[in-house]
Amino acid sequence: MPTEKMSAFANSLAVMEQVVVKNGVALTAVDDDHEGVIVEMSEPMDSEAFASILRASLALWRKQGKKGIWIKVPIELVNLVEAVVKEGFWYHHAEPKYLMLVKWISEDAHTLPANASHRVAIGAFVMNEKREVLVVQEKKGILRGKGIWKFPTGVVDEGEDICDAAVREVKEETAIDTEFVELLAFRQSHKAFFGKSDLFFLCMLQPLSSEIQKQELEIEAAEWMPWEEYVVQPFVQQKPFLKLMSEICVAKKDKTYSGFKPFPIKSSESDHKTGLYVNAQDLTRS
Amino acid sequence: MPTEKMSAFANSLAVMEQVVVKNGVALTAVDDDHEGVIVEMSEPMDSEAFASILRASLALWRKQGKKGIWIKVPIELVNLVEAVVKEGFWYHHAEPKYLMLVKWISEDAHTLPANASHRVAIGAFVMNEKREVLVVQEKKGILRGKGIWKFPTGVVDEGEDICDAAVREVKEETAIDTEFVELLAFRQSHKAFFGKSDLFFLCMLQPLSSEIQKQELEIEAAEWMPWEEYVVQPFVQQKPFLKLMSEICVAKKDKTYSGFKPFPIKSSESDHKTGLYVNAQDLTRS
Repeated sequence: MPTEKMSAFANSLAVMEQVVVKNGVALTAVDDDHEGVIVEMSEPMDSEAFASILRASLALWRKQGKKGIWIKVPIELVNLVEAVVKEGFWYHHAEPKYLMLVKWISEDAHTLPANASHRVAIGAFVMNEKREVLVVQEKKGILRGKGIWKFPTGVVDEGEDICDAAVREVKEETAIDTEFVELLAFRQSHKAFFGKSDLFFLCMLQPLSSEIQKQELEIEAAEWMPWEEYVVQPFVQQKPFLKLMSEICVAKKDKTYSGFKPFPIKSSESDHKTGLYVNAQDLTRS
Repeated sequence: MPTEKMSAFANSLAVMEQVVVKNGVALTAVDDDHEGVIVEMSEPMDSEAFASILRASLALWRKQGKKGIWIKVPIELVNLVEAVVKEGFWYHHAEPKYLMLVKWISEDAHTLPANASHRVAIGAFVMNEKREVLVVQEKKGILRGKGIWKFPTGVVDEGEDICDAAVREVKEETAIDTEFVELLAFRQSHKAFFGKSDLFFLCMLQPLSSEIQKQELEIEAAEWMPWEEYVVQPFVQQKPFLKLMSEICVAKKDKTYSGFKPFPIKSSESDHKTGLYVNAQDLTRS
């Protein structure tokens, strides 16, 4: 843009800022429950014009005593991100299609919610009436090509119940239908990926079918294996974590161990369908 | 930039791209464990020059058969984000100081790890020898000003153990020292914040001190309250989730309920210090 045009443009932006502040015209925002506002950008905008309106909006929100300012920028409007950061916002979280930025404009200590910090995964202990356990060999990852038999495992999808995820993963990897029985134990690991943490839940499932059909993409082999064969694998015996898990499975199959299971909540209220995961055996006994 | 200079600049960028592809000069990247590469940007760069080198690097990585391409952009280099998105990258996750973008350049179905999906929180059931429970009234959030007494609660920090978080939150809110006893139950909620999920763990703690000193910022009041007084609050009786939790606490204080506790793993290996959370009572009995 030629210099004289630039300067005219800058002047008009400055005027626009004054107008916005004076008349309370600002970015469209909705109040949150914590004295803050949320802006969801949706229309394409020139980044300079946007920066100007953002500055004016911030002045307005400060006058109104707002605290946390959230701006959600869809990935198509990535050209606006730099302007937001230049106004002192930082990243709160991102998903494939958007970036959420936040700025705290109050004098009070900030009380912004933390970002999601954990990924949740499951391992499935599935034993049939012959005391055979459902095991797989993986095509990918660190166990590839090592001939190690392991329980089906997988990551809980966004918005998915842990118990449903266990049933889904077993079905996906082996085509076996199952019913969730109980959560036997869990492990919290840190710095599992990109510095984030991991919660791994060991679940017991009851098989409802027997014919295995392995998934091609991720699974090298799948079979029903006598428990003794699974457990004597050096991999299981040498990994204290797997050894302890196998001891819990033994205690469970011998019916001396009680884990957690979803305990329904008697209510018409919109409480979550799985209620709480509790030691249901102890709770109903007491 | 004047037109003729622009055009010369564009030409020199095109030459640079060719040089990069020909000589294998590209963005500095380290291989990951899944046939992909990770680039960590750290030096300020002109966004157009960066775009050009990025394109050349992608061509090189394709030739090398790479799959997932990760680019970590610190917030100071926000000017580079648009160029990355224009090359077909999408957001994987963000933390306050950086944005991680990813692109899958293989023909195979993508196997990129999921982003963290859950926030983890705790509630602390702390009962003293007089069968009084430690309760607080909050200054902020939806319970503000309602006179409701509740267990101390809080979010587990990034990298923090659940059991440590419970002890820390009680200490912060009330100054009471405690020891972690057991995890009694948990709830998984969806769409708790920004579409993310929440895992809430109810923990039992043993008090090691008795003198309360409430935290000023978040806590309106804190006290030791007879269990009966806590439990008859309409808030507790009418919320099925809280009512069930209170029944579990009763079962626990009457010693008929067994939850999960960290079970040490006997090993010199660097397995996690808390090992697995298990029903230790059942496991040692079996």
